[in-house]
Amino acid sequence: MNAATDARTDAYDVVVLGAGPVGENLADRAAAAGLTTVIVESELVGGECSYWACIPSKALLRPVIARADARRLPGLARAAAGPLDADAVLARRDSYVGGWKDDGQVSWLESAGIDLVRGFGRLDGPRRVAVTEPDGAVRYLTARHAVAVCTGSRAALPGLPGLAETRPWTSREATAAAAVPKRLAVVGGGVVAAEMATAWQGLGSLVTVLVRGSGLLPRLEPFAGELVARALTESGADVRTGTSVTAVRRPVPGGPVTLTLDGREELEVDEVLFATGRAPRTDDIGLETVGLTPGGWLEVDDTCRVRGVDGGWLYAAGDVNHRALLTHQGKYQARIAGAAIGARAAGGAGLDTGPWGAHAATADTAAVPQVVFTDPEVAAVGLTAEQAEAEGRRVRAVDYDLGKVSGSALYADGYRGRARMVVDLDRGHLVGVTFVGPAVGELLHSATVAVVGEVPVERLWHAVPAFPTISEVWLRLLETYRG
Amino acid sequence: MNAATDARTDAYDVVVLGAGPVGENLADRAAAAGLTTVIVESELVGGECSYWACIPSKALLRPVIARADARRLPGLARAAAGPLDADAVLARRDSYVGGWKDDGQVSWLESAGIDLVRGFGRLDGPRRVAVTEPDGAVRYLTARHAVAVCTGSRAALPGLPGLAETRPWTSREATAAAAVPKRLAVVGGGVVAAEMATAWQGLGSLVTVLVRGSGLLPRLEPFAGELVARALTESGADVRTGTSVTAVRRPVPGGPVTLTLDGREELEVDEVLFATGRAPRTDDIGLETVGLTPGGWLEVDDTCRVRGVDGGWLYAAGDVNHRALLTHQGKYQARIAGAAIGARAAGGAGLDTGPWGAHAATADTAAVPQVVFTDPEVAAVGLTAEQAEAEGRRVRAVDYDLGKVSGSALYADGYRGRARMVVDLDRGHLVGVTFVGPAVGELLHSATVAVVGEVPVERLWHAVPAFPTISEVWLRLLETYRG
Repeated sequence: MNAATDARTDAYDVVVLGAGPVGENLADRAAAAGLTTVIVESELVGGECSYWACIPSKALLRPVIARADARRLPGLARAAAGPLDADAVLARRDSYVGGWKDDGQVSWLESAGIDLVRGFGRLDGPRRVAVTEPDGAVRYLTARHAVAVCTGSRAALPGLPGLAETRPWTSREATAAAAVPKRLAVVGGGVVAAEMATAWQGLGSLVTVLVRGSGLLPRLEPFAGELVARALTESGADVRTGTSVTAVRRPVPGGPVTLTLDGREELEVDEVLFATGRAPRTDDIGLETVGLTPGGWLEVDDTCRVRGVDGGWLYAAGDVNHRALLTHQGKYQARIAGAAIGARAAGGAGLDTGPWGAHAATADTAAVPQVVFTDPEVAAVGLTAEQAEAEGRRVRAVDYDLGKVSGSALYADGYRGRARMVVDLDRGHLVGVTFVGPAVGELLHSATVAVVGEVPVERLWHAVPAFPTISEVWLRLLETYRG
Repeated sequence: MNAATDARTDAYDVVVLGAGPVGENLADRAAAAGLTTVIVESELVGGECSYWACIPSKALLRPVIARADARRLPGLARAAAGPLDADAVLARRDSYVGGWKDDGQVSWLESAGIDLVRGFGRLDGPRRVAVTEPDGAVRYLTARHAVAVCTGSRAALPGLPGLAETRPWTSREATAAAAVPKRLAVVGGGVVAAEMATAWQGLGSLVTVLVRGSGLLPRLEPFAGELVARALTESGADVRTGTSVTAVRRPVPGGPVTLTLDGREELEVDEVLFATGRAPRTDDIGLETVGLTPGGWLEVDDTCRVRGVDGGWLYAAGDVNHRALLTHQGKYQARIAGAAIGARAAGGAGLDTGPWGAHAATADTAAVPQVVFTDPEVAAVGLTAEQAEAEGRRVRAVDYDLGKVSGSALYADGYRGRARMVVDLDRGHLVGVTFVGPAVGELLHSATVAVVGEVPVERLWHAVPAFPTISEVWLRLLETYRG
């Protein structure tokens, strides 16, 4: 087949670039609004999250965390004292990513009435997408109402000479690896670094975490990174802060990697994970054909419509708009953007773009939740105390030692954790909450509802936590706030 | 010492009968309002919850549940396949009840400025309490502002001839037992029965549950009891519904117990737990001296003031008022009653008894939360669908299979559970939520905040659950509701 002769054009109401969870949700909402919708994907339908991020990472982490929990319980601790069966954990991970096949996701697209075009999609002028199919053929799609960029992000590697030749792990290899490296260096201090250090240390690697900054999880309340670093250290990992990797080499392919730290010390490991940030997948999607600059994050309004595009037909949801690089938040944006596209296509009368309206991603700025699946878990929503103050809010941060809660102590002997709520004193409700400790992940949504619902502190006194659960920390926080 | 010559009278602002968590909290709030406060206790300061209920039961249950979780995780399952070390679990339980000594609690009373009188307290006319001290001396306390009855409840045994002589277990013995019985019968189908069946089956007993009604946990959504019964059965317990115990005998003290079931079949066990309900501890507290009937539950208003007492000086909080027989809800009532006593003592200007006011236990009727620590856990708040309909509300019950949530599947292979939210269609917010499944206990508070905060369903769409947690069921419930 020849691309030129085979070229054809199909018209849809909505064209979506990228079939990760964000693209899927956006397409679903557009289709539900009665719009004909097509989604373009060059890799696996289901995206990064399903195959190389959230799902496999949590499949690896869960047994590690469950074992840590078991080890804190007399009667079960001895049974859980030994190593995990790493092969069984890796096999479990494989089953959760479906062996890196996307049949199930494709079936879902079909059931939702969404067309799929496999290939690499690029904007080709306003409301038009050119898809290079696997066989090299080019196919054109036009969009009557909207094109949505949901291409996500990729790992950003630092500019170290020769880095590519050492074949370092990124988040993809760290979640997809087929064997446990004996020695693993993790470069970075964010969520991916903290989670993958926890997973592989738990699975039997000797992990060294190399953090350029002063601690782990720098965007969260300071005690989060402190508690995670302490636990990682106690589990046998070596967490080094204020440490930069200045050179890296792997002389023999498949052999050990040598890292130079701060231009002086050397560290030899078997694999090295660079978890040093994300870059938008916008460098090669034809942004230049619609007057935008390739390679940057796409700035959007609260309906996820890209700013500065004539006619307002271009949307961007998920990592690519840089509002909140989290699967669930991207899906939230996708639901809102898909519904907004539908409302605008219907004439715009039903559009509700006020704060917390059906077509405004208000939570992106007010209430982004995040769970870091480390041991202890970190769960946070909304603003940290520092962020709230930087916004000029008059706030009070209220802290409580989670280990002093009966439900925490019963959950695990020696339970260690901390909670903070940030009260906006002028508005009388919470603007941020952070929990750190075993099993706080499921507790987060209580805070998310409180922040999003702008529930007054006085009313929260009537939200009684069941005794004896960890959630009784809510009562302790309120008592501490009352003073 | 002679009781008559030693008799003396001390005057306080507030006299509290019963130093369980409810009495402690009520006294604390009264003292915080500047009122002189004394608390009377005939057993251990800290009460039923600390020594013979919530705390020891959860100390026994937690390793059982953690082992069940571990067994559902490849990589850890084999290590967790064996029996629990029951001696270690029982020793853990002993440590959590402080060896049944109340020194810590007494120190707390002192630090809060609350006087303690050890002895059995009885009302002795209006605003007056007679305390029979351990040595038989009688001491009198008068209350300038209020007497609060926080005497709680005790296990109610059925009227079977000879039952007392068989020395059956009640909730006290079931949580305090020093050894694992080989065969245990559990009579009843409520929370105590379900939890203790789970605990002892997990610790190695062969448990037979004898339920008169059609299933377990009859006051909760029907699927709760069904899922718990199924799991108990799979763990090796024998759950028999529609079965009544018609006779019981233990011919040899310390020997086996024989139960007659429905007048026909016999069942021999080593211990039998009667978890057949609760009775108020009001039969011998002098209610007759203030015009009330001994032995009944005390009816109170939303400030927990007992109805029908001249001068309104008598309060009752906790189990004894029969509003919600749960420690946390009793503590909630205690905080409200203590504050109401303070506000009334100060002249009443600051009293706020409107719905959700600072001095109204509104949640008692609108949003009582409860976690049943079984495997699977049951967590519910507010009204069941049936209860909401019985109240004449126009509601819609929305169900979702918790096992279909990614976070649930990752939490445990073969995760089984269900969620229901009950939407009040006229008010536009939730009035009840039930979760059943592993690890849903900490998820409950999200529902409690939503119900108590009366957060509109439209706003809940902005409360994004972190991916991949079990809390993503919230999104699925909302999607199902949208239909």
